[in-house]
Parts: sequence; C-alpha cells; structure tokens
Amino acid sequence: MLEAGASLALLGGIACAARAQPAGSAPRELKRLVAANRILANEGVVDAFGHVSVRDPRNAERFWLSRSRSPALVELDDLMEFSLDGAAIDARGRTPYGERMIHAAVYAARAEVHSVVHNHAYGVLPFTITDEPLRPVVHTASVIGAVVPVWDIRTKFGGTDMLVRTIEQGRDLASALADNTCALLRGHGAVVVGASIERAVLTAIYLQVNANVLLQALQLGGEPEALSAEEIARSSETQFSPLALDRSWEYFCQRAGVDPG
Amino acid sequence: MLEAGASLALLGGIACAARAQPAGSAPRELKRLVAANRILANEGVVDAFGHVSVRDPRNAERFWLSRSRSPALVELDDLMEFSLDGAAIDARGRTPYGERMIHAAVYAARAEVHSVVHNHAYGVLPFTITDEPLRPVVHTASVIGAVVPVWDIRTKFGGTDMLVRTIEQGRDLASALADNTCALLRGHGAVVVGASIERAVLTAIYLQVNANVLLQALQLGGEPEALSAEEIARSSETQFSPLALDRSWEYFCQRAGVDPG
Amino acid sequence: MLEAGASLALLGGIACAARAQPAGSAPRELKRLVAANRILANEGVVDAFGHVSVRDPRNAERFWLSRSRSPALVELDDLMEFSLDGAAIDARGRTPYGERMIHAAVYAARAEVHSVVHNHAYGVLPFTITDEPLRPVVHTASVIGAVVPVWDIRTKFGGTDMLVRTIEQGRDLASALADNTCALLRGHGAVVVGASIERAVLTAIYLQVNANVLLQALQLGGEPEALSAEEIARSSETQFSPLALDRSWEYFCQRAGVDPG
Amino acid sequence: MLEAGASLALLGGIACAARAQPAGSAPRELKRLVAANRILANEGVVDAFGHVSVRDPRNAERFWLSRSRSPALVELDDLMEFSLDGAAIDARGRTPYGERMIHAAVYAARAEVHSVVHNHAYGVLPFTITDEPLRPVVHTASVIGAVVPVWDIRTKFGGTDMLVRTIEQGRDLASALADNTCALLRGHGAVVVGASIERAVLTAIYLQVNANVLLQALQLGGEPEALSAEEIARSSETQFSPLALDRSWEYFCQRAGVDPG
Repeated sequence: MLEAGASLALLGGIACAARAQPAGSAPRELKRLVAANRILANEGVVDAFGHVSVRDPRNAERFWLSRSRSPALVELDDLMEFSLDGAAIDARGRTPYGERMIHAAVYAARAEVHSVVHNHAYGVLPFTITDEPLRPVVHTASVIGAVVPVWDIRTKFGGTDMLVRTIEQGRDLASALADNTCALLRGHGAVVVGASIERAVLTAIYLQVNANVLLQALQLGGEPEALSAEEIARSSETQFSPLALDRSWEYFCQRAGVDPG
Repeated sequence: MLEAGASLALLGGIACAARAQPAGSAPRELKRLVAANRILANEGVVDAFGHVSVRDPRNAERFWLSRSRSPALVELDDLMEFSLDGAAIDARGRTPYGERMIHAAVYAARAEVHSVVHNHAYGVLPFTITDEPLRPVVHTASVIGAVVPVWDIRTKFGGTDMLVRTIEQGRDLASALADNTCALLRGHGAVVVGASIERAVLTAIYLQVNANVLLQALQLGGEPEALSAEEIARSSETQFSPLALDRSWEYFCQRAGVDPG
Repeated sequence: MLEAGASLALLGGIACAARAQPAGSAPRELKRLVAANRILANEGVVDAFGHVSVRDPRNAERFWLSRSRSPALVELDDLMEFSLDGAAIDARGRTPYGERMIHAAVYAARAEVHSVVHNHAYGVLPFTITDEPLRPVVHTASVIGAVVPVWDIRTKFGGTDMLVRTIEQGRDLASALADNTCALLRGHGAVVVGASIERAVLTAIYLQVNANVLLQALQLGGEPEALSAEEIARSSETQFSPLALDRSWEYFCQRAGVDPG
Repeated sequence: MLEAGASLALLGGIACAARAQPAGSAPRELKRLVAANRILANEGVVDAFGHVSVRDPRNAERFWLSRSRSPALVELDDLMEFSLDGAAIDARGRTPYGERMIHAAVYAARAEVHSVVHNHAYGVLPFTITDEPLRPVVHTASVIGAVVPVWDIRTKFGGTDMLVRTIEQGRDLASALADNTCALLRGHGAVVVGASIERAVLTAIYLQVNANVLLQALQLGGEPEALSAEEIARSSETQFSPLALDRSWEYFCQRAGVDPG
C-alpha cells in the first residue's frame, strides 16, 4: 500500500516522489520491487537476465518494471511504468526489457495478479525441455500449484529468437498459464505470478527448490510421493499466511542485504 | 550448564537475566541456542523455515525456542519458554512457531533428549518422498543412527497443510520417531534430536551430508556399503566425544560468525 | 576500441601506455581483458588454470594474454603481447602460459575471432569424455552454436601431457574447431571464441550453464528438446545484441568486483 | 626449506622459533603447513574434520601436524611435532588428533613422501562405498595416479569406530596405499600423499574435482574415456612443474586469504 499523496509521484516517477514525500522516501511498493530484484538475484533465481514487476497499486491498468538491467543491479530510479499494452508511460530515455510483454499480457488476463516474475533459474530449466511434469512434492513449494504447464513458443510462432516480444506472444503465454501460478517456457525459463510481490518472489524461489528436490527424488527411483490436491490447497494457504510470509520476506531481505521495506 | 542464580532469570526471560548476571551476559544455554540457530542457517540445514530448541536445564518440563523468526536472524530476545503442552510461559506479545508441538511432544516422550531440530534441508527432502531408506554410509554420519523412519502426517490426519500443529500430531510423530535420533516427515523435512544442543546440531548437519553422499553413491550403481551396527554404535560414541564435539562446534561457530559460548 | 595515440603504447606495453595517456589510464581493450580474467574466475569457468586473450585491436597479427598466472589474480602489468606463432614481443622476464599456442593458432585461422577463452570448467568436463554431444538446449546458450566438436590430442599426437604446446597441436585443434564457436578437448577442457572479449566470456559462461542443464535434463529421461537451427541463429543474434551484451557484461563485472571499463 | 638456525626452534616449538628468527617470522615449512590447512578448508576438501601434515625438513624421523582442531582454524602455535610412532615430542598440554597414526605410518613406509592429507571430501565419499573405481579422467587430476585403492578397516580390524587409531591400523592402511598417491577409506574418506605440501594439497583438491567429473560423466552413459598410463605420467610431471605448482599455490592461497609463504 502506498502512503497518501503518492499517486502523482508514482505517475511522475521517483524524482517527483522525492518531492511529495519525506526526504529519502519512495513509494513503499516500489522499494519492495527493488528488494524483490535483489532477492531473486541473491537466491540464484535470476542471473544476468530475468525480471520482476508489480501492478501499480493505484492504477490497475499500469505496472512497474525496471529498465533493461540485471536484477542484481536494479535501483529505484531504474523503475519504469508501463500500460497493459507494454508501452512505457515516461521512458525518460531508459530502454525497457524486450520481454515486458510477458508482464503486460499476464496483468491484462489476470485481475487478481499483482506481481509477475520471469526467470531462467538453472534448476528449473531441465523441466522445460523434458516430459517430466514439475509438480509440488514438498510443502514449502505447495504455492507453485498442482499444475505447471509448459508453453512452447514454437507451436504458434515458429522459429523465433525464443523471446516473448509481442503482445500476441504474451497473450498466448498467458493463455497457456491459464489460472495456474507458474508456467514453464520451453528451452527458456518460467513465469511466476502472485497476488503480491512477496508471494511471487517466494513462489519463484521455491519453484526452483522443488525442481531440485524432485530431480534428486527421481534419481532415487520409483515414483516420488506427491502432495495431494487438498495438501496443496491447505499448505499454500499456510505458506501465504502473514506469519510465514513475513518471516520468509525478512529472511530473504536480510540475505540480500536489503531493507524489508 | 547455567551459572548459579540463573534459574530465576531463565524463568523470567532474558530481560531479568540481565539483572542477575554480569552486564551483557545471558544464560549460557540460551546463548548456545542462538548460536545453534545461526549455525544451522549458515550450513544450509534450515532456510527461511526450520527451528531448534533446548530443554530448560533447570526445569525438565520446559523448553526454549525462538519466536516465529528465521533461524538466521534469531537473537537472544527472540527466545521464548514453553511447557510440554506447547503453551508459552511468558509470550510478551511474541508469536510462537506454528510447529512448536514437534518439540513439546518429543521432550514429553524422551527424557534423555535435551535439544530438538526441525528442518527442511534440501538434500534430505528427496528421501522423504521415496522408498530409498536414508541410512548412515559415512562415519561422521553414524550419529544419525541405524534407522531413520519416515512419518506421513496423512496416514492418521488425512489432508492437512502438512504442518505439525496439534499436540496429537506431535505425539504421533514422536511415536514414529520412537527411540531413533532422526525421523523424516513425508514431503516436509526432518526432526533430529540430541542429548545436547551441540549433538542435535551436528547430527542435523551430517544427516544432510550423508543424504548427499548416499544419493551420489546410488548413482554410481550397486548397493553402497553401509556402516555395520557395531560401526554405527562405536563411531557415534567417538563423534560425540568431547574431542570431536568441541572441535566441530568451534568450527561451525567460526563459520557462522558466532561465539562458541 | 583504443583511444588515439594508444598504438605505440600497446606495442611498448603498459609502462609506455602510462606515458601516452592520462595518469592511471590504460588501453581500454586491455582493461577489459583484465576484467574478463576476473569474471571467468568469479563465475567458476576457470580455476587455477585457464586463460583468456584478445587480438590486438591495432594489429591483427598480434594478441594479448596474461603471463602464466591464475586468471583470478591477473593484473594489467601481467599482460604480454604475442605474434601469431606464439612468440612473445616483449617478455620483460615474464613467463608465458605453456598453452598460448591455442590462441595463436585460432587467431591465425579465424580472422573474425577477436577473443579466445581456454578453460577447464568442471560442468563442461564430463562432456569431454563421453559420447553425449554438448548442444544448446536453453536460449541463453544459443551462442555456443549448434555443433560443439570434441578434439582428442591423442589422435594425432599420441601420448602427451595433454597440453596444447606446439603450434602444430594448436593448428590441429583450430582445424577441429573449424568455424564453430566452441570445441571440447578430451579429458582437458574447452576452447571458446568470440568476435569480442564480451562475447567470448559470455559464451564460456553459458557453455557451462548449458552443460549443467543438459546433464540434469538427461537424468529426467527421454530426449531433451533441443533448440532448432533457426532458434539458435536468431537467439544468438539477440544474446549478442548491445542490449543483452551490455546488460550481462555490467552484471558479471559487478559480481567480480571489476570496472566494466 | 628452513632458514639456517631454525632446527632448534623447530624442536622447541614456535615460541622458541620467535627468538631464533626475525620478529614475526617462523620456519617457512610450518607457515606453509598453516596455509595448507586453510586452503583445504576453503576448497571444501576438509570440513570440521581432516588434517594435513609435513615431514620435518631437518629430521626425516619427525613430522608436524596440528593439535586436534579444525583445519580452518589452525594457527602456527597449534602445530605439534611427532615421531614416526605417533608420539608427541613436546605436547605442552595440547591434544593431538586421534588419527595421527595415518601420518606416522605413511612417513615410516614412504621415504619420498613429505606431506600427508587425510580428508572426508564429500565428493570423494561416494567412491569409498561403491565398486566404481576412482580413476583420473581429466588432466589436472592426473596427479592422483592411475590406481586409487580402497581400504576397508573392517577387513582386518572388524567392528571399529572407523578411525585409524593404532600404528597397526596405520601400517595396514599404508600397505594398502602401497606406492600410490591416494587411497580411499571405506565409509570414511581418503589419504593423499605428496613429495611436498603443495603437491599433497593440489592432489587432494583435484581428487575431489575428478570424482565430481567422473560421477557426472557416468550419468551421461557409456564408459568415460580415461587418461592413458602415458598421459597420466606425462601430465603429472607437468602439473607438478614449478610453473603449474607455483601458479596454483598462489591461486589457492589468495582464495583462502593466506600468505603464499
């Protein structure tokens, strides 16, 4: 939630925000978006590439995303605002990510989604190129949901550079994601959505943890025991309770050396 | 062991302890519990989740455990005391872990246990969802014991959020643990007990080391040579001798940047 | 690109460069070569061994390479210039790498190559001793190219110390590399080439990422879905666009604690 | 090599050495032994347990080894001198490692050995409990030698605590090691010997690298191509040349934050 009076600041960018608020402050949601970038980098969910966005808390038709920069280096002044067709509101010469359409299309399709992570987590990638379904087998990963579809850009768009560049490609991906929380992109990575920045970040982290555990369990032989539908539903609720969410956000912020905000 | 005069302090919490002891001091056992939290985090045995407790050295019907906080961040003032039904003695507004019943039930069932670790170590998790028994194959892990049972909360409690929330669930887990040192929780993690904080921490660390080694040995093919019952018994005794225990405690404290206490 | 007036400095070494340029400055290409050394070490692409070179931007018949020193420790004054037969131009008592012939032979054979990395990345090594082809399966690794040949020094040179010591051995390796971007050396490592330092470094990093992902995908069973020829071509172009290259270079420099230059 | 006049100092311990040499100095070989401890810890070759020794350069019937302490923490004053039956020359109240007999027996059996490492490197352990032979498959690991025997304490000594505690056990292990450079101890770890501290340390590091690479190569299927006997011999010579040895020693010292000595 933003403090009163932050709306104009948000529309005008961080430079304006500095005028509308106490010195050194910035809209809380944008500070948390910077923290999210640093956390995902620190946990190895993103490397040089990958990004995370948040829907504008004052305007559901807008979202915030860094300019084209590695998440480990993102600062407040790198954040740009976009409309749901992927157009920058006030670019100020900053170059956006080529794949901002992933975010634009998902926000357009899913009103309840307030944050989107796109990443190439190394532990998740093997599941993007094989038939083994990535399903939750440990309770902390219940939040990834029972079904993680795999989307292949080649199916509808043929030979590409693999990136989700157009709003049409973004919509097709959003359609494959459907009402799930995570989708894999063949030979590319994943998209993870959440009702808040914290939820999307946590889900992206435990998606990779779960992928590593599942890979190892498969090496032990036999069919790994999966979480039941009821366990997934109930455990997700617990993992997203304020108790669990605050605890893990504090932890990941401390590891990344950022203020929990 | 606590210094003379620490009993009241322990009952009254750290704030009182400060009055009963030299400035800056705190009951030694509680300092070691803070160290244990930091060590387990630093060695990757716990992440945002997981916890470690110690039985009150002055009152066997009580145990100490942090408030709901990630082990990496636990400080002396986070420690709360509980009775063996999981009720907080002096909460002072602090929120306890949802799973304190694991600790309560184990202390009630096992008089010789003075410390309990609950964790979701990633290397251990694969063994919680497959039929491959986790058994000690290297001597430093002899302390995990010959048998590591797997407990499934679903068997008696059906579809849950996977957490051990009630004293009945805790007792059922303690009953599956029986007189072993470690038990696995299906799709969830492990519980590790010890006659002291140092023993429980060391066992939790080498449980994960052993899981990794066993997984790799299985990949090499054939049946890995296990430790014999006699080797497990004799090696455990050696690993828990003051010589080995002091050496490893000093080492893990130094790595975690905490005072050995 | 070097600033005007740097040519003589380059020919005379860094000590001369200091005279021809503002205090503390050095030819930009050489600074980037130092950064490349540190990045490759920091990302685990090289360890005590391995090296990276750049073709002299003013003289295509010359290249720069550190004296015999681990990449993590290379400084500007360690850089030596060589002709394309591997002879040092101005050794000043410095001992060159025994395998500088890899670089010499590749620059002689491939006019479009401006940087060469030789490494023993642990994740790549398994593919040097088995029949499983290392091919790109994730888009960030499209830059390694469709074909990664394996060269065995034993085929033409019999029992050796495995090192590429002579210009004849270098030429044989260059011939096996042909017009590809990467080649593996059996039981030894890899050679990676690029049109610039940044490209060669990025390719070496993602060669290892891809090797790890492919190994894990193979463990999941079935034939991993590979990038198509068209995807490799288009994605390479994207990964080597200024947008992607600048972003990743900034990222890897920051992680290694070096100036992007 | 020790400076002139260091002999008495060596016999009398570091405290005496301080009198016989310039302020702050210590016999070079002992400084390097401290560095070796720190390097092995930093590279994950040893953890809380494991040790490294050096034969006394002035008296072939003596060797130096830390008191019972984790290698990561070893300092000059922890070093103790032992005779070849494992008896401490001047304990000064310090407790020796329980397994010093490994070192004693190997020095007694192998006149050309000047340094011994004993470790439980996690990557090596799987090969101690399976039938898959650990053989060199990459050139940097040629120094481990063509044959790495596995010794099982149970064969001659029945059910033990797995530790090599008596000189008889040490001799049996030395006999299994024979004239090889490395031997594995079933369910326990490895012993690695060298003609110098640097050689033993390097060999111990690349033994683990090779184990990891071999494990992964086996997962790729087929029989990994091994180094030939001639390649092992020639490559070992190269890896132990001053050029390679100095380069890697400087590198590993820098990583461990110790003076190359």
